[in-house]
Amino acid sequence: MASKTELEHFFATEFPQADFVIEELGSRSATIRKCITEAHLRPGGTVSGPVLMEVADAALYVAILAELGLVAMAVTTSLNFNFLRKPDSNRDIIAECTLMKVGKALVVGEVSMYSEGDQEPVAHAVGSYAIPPRN
Amino acid sequence: MASKTELEHFFATEFPQADFVIEELGSRSATIRKCITEAHLRPGGTVSGPVLMEVADAALYVAILAELGLVAMAVTTSLNFNFLRKPDSNRDIIAECTLMKVGKALVVGEVSMYSEGDQEPVAHAVGSYAIPPRN
Amino acid sequence: MASKTELEHFFATEFPQADFVIEELGSRSATIRKCITEAHLRPGGTVSGPVLMEVADAALYVAILAELGLVAMAVTTSLNFNFLRKPDSNRDIIAECTLMKVGKALVVGEVSMYSEGDQEPVAHAVGSYAIPPRN
Amino acid sequence: MASKTELEHFFATEFPQADFVIEELGSRSATIRKCITEAHLRPGGTVSGPVLMEVADAALYVAILAELGLVAMAVTTSLNFNFLRKPDSNRDIIAECTLMKVGKALVVGEVSMYSEGDQEPVAHAVGSYAIPPRN
Repeated sequence: MASKTELEHFFATEFPQADFVIEELGSRSATIRKCITEAHLRPGGTVSGPVLMEVADAALYVAILAELGLVAMAVTTSLNFNFLRKPDSNRDIIAECTLMKVGKALVVGEVSMYSEGDQEPVAHAVGSYAIPPRN
Repeated sequence: MASKTELEHFFATEFPQADFVIEELGSRSATIRKCITEAHLRPGGTVSGPVLMEVADAALYVAILAELGLVAMAVTTSLNFNFLRKPDSNRDIIAECTLMKVGKALVVGEVSMYSEGDQEPVAHAVGSYAIPPRN
Repeated sequence: MASKTELEHFFATEFPQADFVIEELGSRSATIRKCITEAHLRPGGTVSGPVLMEVADAALYVAILAELGLVAMAVTTSLNFNFLRKPDSNRDIIAECTLMKVGKALVVGEVSMYSEGDQEPVAHAVGSYAIPPRN
Repeated sequence: MASKTELEHFFATEFPQADFVIEELGSRSATIRKCITEAHLRPGGTVSGPVLMEVADAALYVAILAELGLVAMAVTTSLNFNFLRKPDSNRDIIAECTLMKVGKALVVGEVSMYSEGDQEPVAHAVGSYAIPPRN
């Protein structure tokens, strides 16, 4: 298990380009926030798909490290995305991740993403991660 | 919108081979039960993957028809499955479906499947359905 | 590695309900045929989605066993389907599987499914399988 | 239909941040190259997952616009990724996209991604896109 402070330090030193905020950690769950700026928009004034995909991947990674600890070498094996609504260009993206399975060799989780303040998700993701054996 | 009785009649007459029980209908949600018998097991004494996939597809279809009415000609466009745990060969499968998006042209829903009485899901599915324009 | 004869014997004894024909085995590839009868159709006269999903799962399993041998205990972890065209109710389904990765712990393959004689696929699937460590 | 020159002009003016090169356009197919620099790597010296996902999305978008013309308002509905091998940090990523279905309302394609010069793919994606009705 890793705490919010430990995770913040880990991402600041190991993934300095990862610009998200850990909002909350729970049992097998994590919520992160992505601050949306001009750089994340695409023509038509909406958050681009790749930005949503990056946020989902980050939320899953945070939830897995929080659960398994920073030593875990989780490797993404598959990710499935469904894009549901056009995100609001003026609001941050909130990603809520829940781990559905935490096995020795495999972790599977799902992520619902929202434009902050909206009830209806803008996108949904399911990801599976292989955990290499520790010797 | 279609009621439980209307849906039961619809499946009995149009899909007589579909052997599941509608347990509950809610707002954009449905729960169905699949009675597990010897015929649904595979070597090793577990419910086969194709049976779980059939149940997920049925749960999504029930939730969509309940929401849009029996006239809806929903066509499955994509289905994604993650298999999480070995189902119990002695218990029915309970599938809980929630629709995440109900648009004019596209409906997307997710399904969690359980061996009855267990808290942890045995499988999870996300499906998207195209709704052809009605003229 | 398992031969066509070994695989046919394996499915006949272990999965007697699996009614498909192994057409061809290649390097990291397999082609199977599913004979379509009345029992596989749904209203509107097309092959049902669950039948296509079962065929894809079988094609992946055949290709994996052919590659790794019958002792392999491959466990499906995820399956993704895209339904592309309405299959012909009068033709068999041909499923062509290619393995994209054959790792020690993970195998990933894709399957294209056709109504026999057609050039355009009716459905496409990608599946990943965990291979438990052999002790 | 859009030519390579038209597409290059379109991306340069509408998506100036999209830094990829269109290598080749074919019938229902496209190949693009992503030049890999330090900015695309993650700890351990490999190309990050989000970079691969962005490249797959771009390859699908190029193939769709080449086929349907620049007026097409393709909206991503689902994307499925499988990560197969660790990409080489010193080589560009080559993404080869083939459209499996080009319908009036739905386009579905697949993408194989390679570290340049390697035979084995590093990742594979399948995406579906809704094409809104033109009035």
